[in-house]
Amino acid sequence: MAKLRLKISMSLDGFVAGPDQSVDNPLGVGGMRIHEWVFPLAAWRKMHGLEGGEVNESSQVVEDSLANIGATIMGRNMFGGQPGPWDERNLWNGWWGDNPPFHHPVFVLTHHMRRPLMRNGGTSFTFVTDGIHAALEQARRAADGKDVSLAGGAKASAQYLKAGLIDEMEINLAPVLLGTGERLFDGVGDDMHDLKLVRTVAAPGVVHLKFARG
Amino acid sequence: MAKLRLKISMSLDGFVAGPDQSVDNPLGVGGMRIHEWVFPLAAWRKMHGLEGGEVNESSQVVEDSLANIGATIMGRNMFGGQPGPWDERNLWNGWWGDNPPFHHPVFVLTHHMRRPLMRNGGTSFTFVTDGIHAALEQARRAADGKDVSLAGGAKASAQYLKAGLIDEMEINLAPVLLGTGERLFDGVGDDMHDLKLVRTVAAPGVVHLKFARG
Repeated sequence: MAKLRLKISMSLDGFVAGPDQSVDNPLGVGGMRIHEWVFPLAAWRKMHGLEGGEVNESSQVVEDSLANIGATIMGRNMFGGQPGPWDERNLWNGWWGDNPPFHHPVFVLTHHMRRPLMRNGGTSFTFVTDGIHAALEQARRAADGKDVSLAGGAKASAQYLKAGLIDEMEINLAPVLLGTGERLFDGVGDDMHDLKLVRTVAAPGVVHLKFARG
Repeated sequence: MAKLRLKISMSLDGFVAGPDQSVDNPLGVGGMRIHEWVFPLAAWRKMHGLEGGEVNESSQVVEDSLANIGATIMGRNMFGGQPGPWDERNLWNGWWGDNPPFHHPVFVLTHHMRRPLMRNGGTSFTFVTDGIHAALEQARRAADGKDVSLAGGAKASAQYLKAGLIDEMEINLAPVLLGTGERLFDGVGDDMHDLKLVRTVAAPGVVHLKFARG
């Protein structure tokens, strides 16, 4: 079966977002610091339609994380953290712009029903209100044999981890402290569900830890 | 000046000891799981007077962590977690036996005064009741030009981290989850005090992350 692959950046003290996440500051205060390793990379810039950039030990990791992905699942904050029910008169279309970097169907976990949102370049956002299993089933169907990427954030990742539904996990460990914020493993417990560390890559500003089923 | 070098094992979710630490279970429930990588090593067995054992990518890291150390600082739980004031009629001499593996002066952070304890093989335990700076000063003097090792546990490490007194930090990251327990970075905040990741070693059951002042 197609795999569910989590990729997420985490601080040394276990946070994947800073405190006080908001529409103005979706990564939370200081949360940008755990992503700084990725922005200079040519692989990241290309995904966002930009030229140039660096090639280093992270490049292959980023390229691998994009390969063979047919659909993405994300939490609602990651789509665009409008609080409360969607306001149909002033619908917030998320952070991702007219031509989001996914180019495949994206499934957003939310408690608030909303019609799917079609964007340019092959990206669609479908809002799933009946839980993580339903979202995974829809994403697998849409992925049509390819794998499904779980893009975060903390709560969505923790739910899938706790349910034992993750087949691969790439943690991009940033050697910084946030001190407070949203922890990846909060409430997950002590069960790795057979995920074993299978590959470590040290790169500028980050250590990539890949886990897969043993 | 001689360096203060922290070495400590930590789970992927940031714990350096499990919950419910006690005299019977000093590492807390499940805490042994973050140390399992070290026990098979010849370098560890030799330190404890045992023959044989494995040589792998961790061996050099362990040997380096022992080199040029003239004194050790530890928290009281790590010496031996007797609750309350020391009972002079039934004095608990800690976990470390008649011939502890340090072979140099050890300074124990505690709130309870006690006479120094001399053991075989060059190890002494001196109990310091006036705080982390006093302990570091005494340890530096005793180390006589060599470095000082900070051996844990969580609270002692966090205090020195927060005060910006750590010069090197070797985190042995075990790819397991504890779910609960004592966190290394609790209360430390978001300041790494110029500690930068300078070396990563992937080894069986552990990733060694070495930080040093930038």
